[in-house]
Amino acid sequence: MNESVSGVGIVALDVPPRARNSVYPEPFASYVSRRSKRVLGDLFGLSNFGVNLTSLLPGGRSALRHAHALQDEFIYVLQGRPTLYTDAGGHVLEAGMCAGFKAGTGDAHHLVNETDETVVFLEVGDRTPGDRVSYPDDDLVATATPSGWLFTHKDGSGY
Amino acid sequence: MNESVSGVGIVALDVPPRARNSVYPEPFASYVSRRSKRVLGDLFGLSNFGVNLTSLLPGGRSALRHAHALQDEFIYVLQGRPTLYTDAGGHVLEAGMCAGFKAGTGDAHHLVNETDETVVFLEVGDRTPGDRVSYPDDDLVATATPSGWLFTHKDGSGY
Repeated sequence: MNESVSGVGIVALDVPPRARNSVYPEPFASYVSRRSKRVLGDLFGLSNFGVNLTSLLPGGRSALRHAHALQDEFIYVLQGRPTLYTDAGGHVLEAGMCAGFKAGTGDAHHLVNETDETVVFLEVGDRTPGDRVSYPDDDLVATATPSGWLFTHKDGSGY
Repeated sequence: MNESVSGVGIVALDVPPRARNSVYPEPFASYVSRRSKRVLGDLFGLSNFGVNLTSLLPGGRSALRHAHALQDEFIYVLQGRPTLYTDAGGHVLEAGMCAGFKAGTGDAHHLVNETDETVVFLEVGDRTPGDRVSYPDDDLVATATPSGWLFTHKDGSGY
């Protein structure tokens, strides 16, 4: 599936999970080792936003808890019961529930699978240039660059 | 639910369908009278893209068949079997299938519910300014303006 299939319907679960699971530096990449992402939007040649079908095995996390400065995010739960953590704490979601994360609020979020069953959800995020991601629980900052995310320590030093 | 609930999970089907079902001029508004849209993204204060949970009763259509110049679109089928029509013809989708519509291809699309059961899908579209929508089957052109969509005949005259 290397060629764009704009306008053709596909079975989302037939898309192979992406080979490189995380672009985080260690130890953060290992923190999300029990998630996998099927990249859907790019498959159709979409460039203004990304859509992934993301699975979390038991114990899996969607990401480090994070907040975007400029990019909005949206998730829709298809299967399982992930716990959504924000600055306000955790609450359990189930299939048919959704949440949105407005850019610039500073309220950091992630999903954690604290159950024994796989969680599957859709995630959408736009690609506004110049984004910056903050991680209140970790010594990490991400800055969007034309060639991808640049990760540094909070003091600006590199990984 | 007038207030933004960024970061809080909600049950998508609990959101009331939007009151005004279509901004098309007649006779096109009636053409989509058997669809309803629950506006999800705006509820969380998202502004870079929109997400709707859209239902099509039997005979319902998602939209006039259309193509965006600048805005990407994505749909994910949650329930039922909508037929996706593009310039290439129709094919039937089912739950778990998705499709993306890259901006600028000129390939026009819509979904039609040709079954006896309700179709439910998620639709995502970004809000790139200056978009223009073409409708190959109808005497209609839409142009994005800061105050919303402006609809004209193909000769530029108003509705």
